[in-house]
Amino acid sequence: MSRLFRVPARVISALCVVSILYSTATAQSAPQKVFGYRDFTEQAKLDTAFMAVPDAKLAGTHLKELTKAPHWASSPEDYATAEYVAAKFKAAGLETEIVPYRVYLNKPKKIVLEARDADGKVVMTGPTKEHVDPSKDGGDLFQDDLRVLPAFNGSSPSGDITGEVVYANYGTLADFKTLRDMGVDLKGKIALVRYGQNFRGVKVYIAQKLGMAGVLIYSDPADDGYVRGDMYPKGPYRPESGVQRGSVQFIAKYTGDPMTPGVASTMSLPESKRLAPDKLTEDNPSIPSNPISYHDALPILQRLGGPASPRNWQGGLPFTYHLGSTATAGTSPAVKVHMHLEQDYAIRTIWDVIGKIRGTEDPDAWVVAGNHRDAWVYGAVDPNSGTAAMLETVHGLGELIKQGWKPKRTIVIGSWDAEEEGLVGSTEWTEEHAEELSHAVAYFNTDVGVSGPHFNAEAVPSLKQFVREVTQQVPSPSGGTVYDAWKHDQQTNEDNRARTRATAQGVAGGEVRIGNLGSGSDYTPFFQHVGVPATDFGSGGNYGVYHSVFDNYNWFIKFADPTFVYEQQQARVLGLEILHMADADVLPYDYRLYGQEVVSYINGVAKDATAAGIILDTTALLKAAERFRNAGEAVYARQNDLPTGSTGAFNASLRKAEEMLLNPVGLPERAWFKHTIYAPGEFTGYAAVVIPGITEALDGGLGKPNATLAQDQAQILTDALNRSALVLEAITR
Amino acid sequence: MSRLFRVPARVISALCVVSILYSTATAQSAPQKVFGYRDFTEQAKLDTAFMAVPDAKLAGTHLKELTKAPHWASSPEDYATAEYVAAKFKAAGLETEIVPYRVYLNKPKKIVLEARDADGKVVMTGPTKEHVDPSKDGGDLFQDDLRVLPAFNGSSPSGDITGEVVYANYGTLADFKTLRDMGVDLKGKIALVRYGQNFRGVKVYIAQKLGMAGVLIYSDPADDGYVRGDMYPKGPYRPESGVQRGSVQFIAKYTGDPMTPGVASTMSLPESKRLAPDKLTEDNPSIPSNPISYHDALPILQRLGGPASPRNWQGGLPFTYHLGSTATAGTSPAVKVHMHLEQDYAIRTIWDVIGKIRGTEDPDAWVVAGNHRDAWVYGAVDPNSGTAAMLETVHGLGELIKQGWKPKRTIVIGSWDAEEEGLVGSTEWTEEHAEELSHAVAYFNTDVGVSGPHFNAEAVPSLKQFVREVTQQVPSPSGGTVYDAWKHDQQTNEDNRARTRATAQGVAGGEVRIGNLGSGSDYTPFFQHVGVPATDFGSGGNYGVYHSVFDNYNWFIKFADPTFVYEQQQARVLGLEILHMADADVLPYDYRLYGQEVVSYINGVAKDATAAGIILDTTALLKAAERFRNAGEAVYARQNDLPTGSTGAFNASLRKAEEMLLNPVGLPERAWFKHTIYAPGEFTGYAAVVIPGITEALDGGLGKPNATLAQDQAQILTDALNRSALVLEAITR
Repeated sequence: MSRLFRVPARVISALCVVSILYSTATAQSAPQKVFGYRDFTEQAKLDTAFMAVPDAKLAGTHLKELTKAPHWASSPEDYATAEYVAAKFKAAGLETEIVPYRVYLNKPKKIVLEARDADGKVVMTGPTKEHVDPSKDGGDLFQDDLRVLPAFNGSSPSGDITGEVVYANYGTLADFKTLRDMGVDLKGKIALVRYGQNFRGVKVYIAQKLGMAGVLIYSDPADDGYVRGDMYPKGPYRPESGVQRGSVQFIAKYTGDPMTPGVASTMSLPESKRLAPDKLTEDNPSIPSNPISYHDALPILQRLGGPASPRNWQGGLPFTYHLGSTATAGTSPAVKVHMHLEQDYAIRTIWDVIGKIRGTEDPDAWVVAGNHRDAWVYGAVDPNSGTAAMLETVHGLGELIKQGWKPKRTIVIGSWDAEEEGLVGSTEWTEEHAEELSHAVAYFNTDVGVSGPHFNAEAVPSLKQFVREVTQQVPSPSGGTVYDAWKHDQQTNEDNRARTRATAQGVAGGEVRIGNLGSGSDYTPFFQHVGVPATDFGSGGNYGVYHSVFDNYNWFIKFADPTFVYEQQQARVLGLEILHMADADVLPYDYRLYGQEVVSYINGVAKDATAAGIILDTTALLKAAERFRNAGEAVYARQNDLPTGSTGAFNASLRKAEEMLLNPVGLPERAWFKHTIYAPGEFTGYAAVVIPGITEALDGGLGKPNATLAQDQAQILTDALNRSALVLEAITR
Repeated sequence: MSRLFRVPARVISALCVVSILYSTATAQSAPQKVFGYRDFTEQAKLDTAFMAVPDAKLAGTHLKELTKAPHWASSPEDYATAEYVAAKFKAAGLETEIVPYRVYLNKPKKIVLEARDADGKVVMTGPTKEHVDPSKDGGDLFQDDLRVLPAFNGSSPSGDITGEVVYANYGTLADFKTLRDMGVDLKGKIALVRYGQNFRGVKVYIAQKLGMAGVLIYSDPADDGYVRGDMYPKGPYRPESGVQRGSVQFIAKYTGDPMTPGVASTMSLPESKRLAPDKLTEDNPSIPSNPISYHDALPILQRLGGPASPRNWQGGLPFTYHLGSTATAGTSPAVKVHMHLEQDYAIRTIWDVIGKIRGTEDPDAWVVAGNHRDAWVYGAVDPNSGTAAMLETVHGLGELIKQGWKPKRTIVIGSWDAEEEGLVGSTEWTEEHAEELSHAVAYFNTDVGVSGPHFNAEAVPSLKQFVREVTQQVPSPSGGTVYDAWKHDQQTNEDNRARTRATAQGVAGGEVRIGNLGSGSDYTPFFQHVGVPATDFGSGGNYGVYHSVFDNYNWFIKFADPTFVYEQQQARVLGLEILHMADADVLPYDYRLYGQEVVSYINGVAKDATAAGIILDTTALLKAAERFRNAGEAVYARQNDLPTGSTGAFNASLRKAEEMLLNPVGLPERAWFKHTIYAPGEFTGYAAVVIPGITEALDGGLGKPNATLAQDQAQILTDALNRSALVLEAITR
């Protein structure tokens, strides 16, 4: 799955010769003072020893092996990758186990799509197989494998429906509201929406709430096709037949096995503890949906009648986009689509791979790092570029173990399965280990590890500075450190900057901006369900083949990282995150910045409420946030001037302060999400909503703002902040 | 020709019902105090009498008659329109004459275009005839007239060339510099450029300077085709085969008959006074060029090799735009185009129609208003929507004459010919009457009179307030006054606002912004060659068929102004401009605002020079500008508090102050342009460059900034401002 760290097209002269300095494996001169350490000298030596190990070529070998066959979750090929990863973990000296779960997954048995014009003439029969001309630009040797599943949506029900088509742009809340405001009748119709701007499950979620019959989601060439640049195999962008598969699970409600919200789907979990298929609630898709290529969308879109769409809904296909019939279904001529989806739903076995290195001083404080392993097809970028990097991280840790090193805290490495279906492997494992994870000190995620050279990260505010420091130690293949290259990207790339600005707040002037954690990858159960402080990072590029058959080794070595030097970089970044979090004297959580951000969020909603004429009393809330911030400042000073002696209790309290930000009751209408400060937006899916209880009550979604609910949520947040502040204050008292 | 007042696509719900209030013909309540009048009472009555006359239906009749046949300048059909206009002038009581000139014009004899791919296979044979499906959306009954000339460029030489194609985006200075900076070899190649952002002649001008062999200019669907909205005849935008004809004369050098710069091409002018065709300088196109449709551009563009173009060069066609071969011609496989143009160049007769109403008090002070009459094909919008409105203005003046009214100053109405070829009719007439025009008090232009409901104007700063006052008296068909609707447009239309902001400066907060006069229509000879204060206005819309066969009566009544109420509005605006300028007690020139704008221009270039590290001493210049502004303020106060008695000498001085801003030597490298404050940009053509002598010396064009030249030009401008200030100071002394 993964939220795409997409770096929009930049104006790069293909003629200008870029001289790339391949940095050597030596660490940059280690900083004198590093947050969390009394003295960084010994850690700096360890870092240097570690950094020398991750190997670009070996990462390439891992990637090639992991992606040699389609390995959809629960398939035999998926199990083979689990064995490969487990073997590497063991070889490095990790206590390793393959952990199976039994989860409810759909696999397409039959996908038939047919479109008829207003006269009833068939104008499209699909889906068209993903295919590029084998004789041009090197072709593609992966596309014809018989194990490639037809493109489908995870979590879509079966269905055999016919409906009139309405074009709904990106299918965002704003788009559907526009249609509603225009008086377009949506009931019983099929939405044709394009990918982008929100999580695909949200498109279906809104369509379902509005009484639509089904959804087709296509990839518009304006978004990841020829408008952005040359199409695969000539260039990195999505070709005409390319389809973005993906889950439409309502991940803003809960993630993981749809049958077991909040409960681990262990092999021994009795059927009675699972929701029967007919007992799945409205928190799951009940209308059929399927992804399609622009090849298959074009004949539909081109024939839509009705008014021209708003001009900013126009995509890259060569005609004016119309809305389709705006009248009640059946009352005027309209393009109709017949969707016949037969999904083979079954409880299937998936396999996480878990490797551990026991800590010597505080073994119950886990440092967890993970990446998923399952792919919609080959998954060269998503996820196995991350897996390959992670295996080289493990390689490095293994070398340190051989040299006699042992971490203070326990390191746990997870290779998750069935992430694509809805973060299933990580969610079930998290649910199984919720108790142990309540004192895990961090979860470090990497998913689409490498699709190009542009580093990007998101994190809980308490770890933003941590990520900056780590990246300042790792060399970038483009020269300087990862941090330097990242900062340069943010300064020079308008689009990238705009994107980051949208998600990052409260960051001082000169530093790189780090976004907030939304959802779409495996950090969600750790961070938003059980409260483990988390980071997520990747190295992005012109990744136009996301979730298609073309996200394969051939694409990767042509367009992402031909010499695997960014793989090596990512292995190092992940490794230093793990090493520092496992061995720091005091946990490097920055509650000062956390407090500043929370204060700014509250000022933000207060302003929004006033602007909207909603009465919201934020006096107590703001006071609690300021208290939390002040406590964070005091703790930050203490962290920088550590008293001698054990830091065990100090660290436990630091971790406890994050736990206090959870609300055991969960968010309104989505009890699985416990974090009071961050959640995926109900109507965005990928993107984070801050202080979600208040924000979404004020926003109102498809309905009206709810001032009472907002006030209630403000009280819950006030309590959480006061609880957390109390814990922090106790440290410095 | 005309600069397009194009209002970019707005997000308008086709479902929302817009209730349009058709205002009655009565004037809005007349303002108490109007600039230029001691007492407005009598004028208000006259205005009311005038406003009742212009008739929407009659304007429609004029338009239908004027556009019933293609009437390219010098054609028999063009002469028929001259006779129609002359008859209307006479009927209204104007002293009327048809004034012929003999000018050098080209007419296409043979236009053959052929493209071959890198393997030598023919992939396009053109040009394709402009044509839409007659069976769909009402078809088009005008497209098959045998008198329609094939699409061509006025002023293109004949040529029979073959060259490799390079895509150069809009062909702006910045675009060609980008190619040069990328090391793309341009010598001997053919530029494929798209319409937009500058005057088409500038595209050819730069290509010629860079040693290219020829230019093809096409209309990209992103700019006026399906990306903007539905194509004709379904919608107002340019269809697949639609071509924008047009002159590529280097109008920033000089306008009018290319053989007689600065001299009138009267019937009696001996051949010896005309430049022989082989004596035309580099101020004229020497490389062949031709406009094409996207239908004909597509097969070329789609096959271009080389690197992908910068991503903001991508247009609306369904593939990634590439640059073409970047190597020296002939050294690598490339798409080639063969252009075979046979132009029938000849000295041809054109016909201006001139109508006069003698002034009673100051007959030598001419108030000139004009519009061109010739069209590339039918010219429903460009220019005859302006002609139709102007005839209804004349109708109104005629009624006043019948009622016994006579103007104080002489009114001259011009119906210009061969504007499309390079403002030829107006330029030759201006050159013939340069002496009389040196004390003409205004030139009011209208060209693309009506293509929709969005009023727009440009003016010399001294007449900006005048335009605002006039539009405050005329009702808008959309309710309120023209001024109100115009202001509302500027406040609500982002694109419109951005466009206006780019050209307007020094305007106070709440008022509508009025741009500066560049070029592209008939005000240029009046204002920039002989110094007559001028305005230009139009009423714009979704005008996607500019200079094509589809700019015809059918398009007009479907998409521009079905009931001709905007025609009526424009007739009234033009009429009030004329009446007020002819009868005001004191000329309503606002030198206060003029001075403020000039000061701001000088501060602007001083800042730019500093930023570019160029030493430019603006001390004396700024002092002169401030003197000019201060004198303007004093004069403005006097105009508002007129002493009793004759204003003859006062008015003569007011007019003289504008004349003093001319430099008889003209601008560097383009002596025909005499105005020191405004000129069309050498590299923009349509758009105005302010204080052009300094601005363009600092800019450097294709070369380097020239600080010495800038300083010389600053001295010239200093002298002009001091001269003008001296005249103004004398009034109030």
